[in-house]
Amino acid sequence: MSHPKPQSAGGIPPLPPPSPATLEKKTLAESRFLRFVNVEYNRPGDNAKASWQYVERTTRKGEVDAVNIFAILKSKDNNHQVLMVKQYRPPLGKFTIELPAGLVDNNESPKDAALRELKEETGYVGHFIGSTGQQFLSPGLTNENMVTIFAEIDPELPENRNPKQSREDRKMGITKMWLPLKNLHHTLANFEAQGWGVFAGLYAIAHGLYIKERMGL
Amino acid sequence: MSHPKPQSAGGIPPLPPPSPATLEKKTLAESRFLRFVNVEYNRPGDNAKASWQYVERTTRKGEVDAVNIFAILKSKDNNHQVLMVKQYRPPLGKFTIELPAGLVDNNESPKDAALRELKEETGYVGHFIGSTGQQFLSPGLTNENMVTIFAEIDPELPENRNPKQSREDRKMGITKMWLPLKNLHHTLANFEAQGWGVFAGLYAIAHGLYIKERMGL
Repeated sequence: MSHPKPQSAGGIPPLPPPSPATLEKKTLAESRFLRFVNVEYNRPGDNAKASWQYVERTTRKGEVDAVNIFAILKSKDNNHQVLMVKQYRPPLGKFTIELPAGLVDNNESPKDAALRELKEETGYVGHFIGSTGQQFLSPGLTNENMVTIFAEIDPELPENRNPKQSREDRKMGITKMWLPLKNLHHTLANFEAQGWGVFAGLYAIAHGLYIKERMGL
Repeated sequence: MSHPKPQSAGGIPPLPPPSPATLEKKTLAESRFLRFVNVEYNRPGDNAKASWQYVERTTRKGEVDAVNIFAILKSKDNNHQVLMVKQYRPPLGKFTIELPAGLVDNNESPKDAALRELKEETGYVGHFIGSTGQQFLSPGLTNENMVTIFAEIDPELPENRNPKQSREDRKMGITKMWLPLKNLHHTLANFEAQGWGVFAGLYAIAHGLYIKERMGL
């Protein structure tokens, strides 16, 4: 058998099929930040009428709900570090290890929002170096989406010599932490073993970082 | 200024602080798969009484809600491919590019669930090679968590010569697609530009794969 041929190799990807119309959308419950809704639609596979329940944020201002930031402090001896936040998360009933993150404000670009959240949550000023596209966090459960910004932190900058988080984030009990970039997946697994919850986006980046090596690619 | 010292360097990570007690938990609305709830708790930062709304799956059987699978077809000439699924997602109103995924059944390990979903959604039999820990998809919005399984697919195996997806997934309109592993982040961005939605876990792994190069690390 010949190997399967990648569908996107050497060209522009196909357009998606036309989306079915939403026949009805109804709010089942709503809080300050979230809305629980039901939609009815004709599913594309067999055109049967179907319904689906999911959650959306009430806070979306533009295209993007939220941002997070993967901020690296480079070191000359190759012991690069990544900036994390620890916080209590009521949905999990656990303290978590996450990337600094937050919702996008009015008229704010994902880049600006991410650098603002970095400053608020950790006190550090970062330098933008790259971005993912729009990522859907759990496409069956919510339309919530996020952009990850990649940044570098220069500890020699005057504004980074005495980093102070915002009063609001101190009230929330958010604390910062540096983790080594090397073997990050392993460090995260060790935190998990101690009872911390690990944010998926962070775990996935960490696994991407080492998967080439792990799989002998 | 000396560089910040990583908190986890060279040892076992700290235990998380004790979680505050949940004072009250109330269901605001419930559907077949999801439950919208309110909890009250004393937030650890300032001990103020606070409330939080979030969503949980009604379907959790053990510790893990869901799994997905990053299944690689290795090639001798280094043009490795990854197996994706395309499907319509009512919460997004879009067709998405995602990893094969699904909920964990009763008494099923994440590994078994992931290999089962791979077979059901794509017809392929994979060989387990590794796993992330438990990942929380959106810790502010839901307690939903997922484990990512890494696998290899050998196209020469008799059971992989004529892969057929399950009837149920055909009815849902799920179709499979191979994408090149090389420059995966770039291919995903091209799909996004064409109107496809991209699953966060997939985008994050793809960015992890190339971040070392991108950041000159």
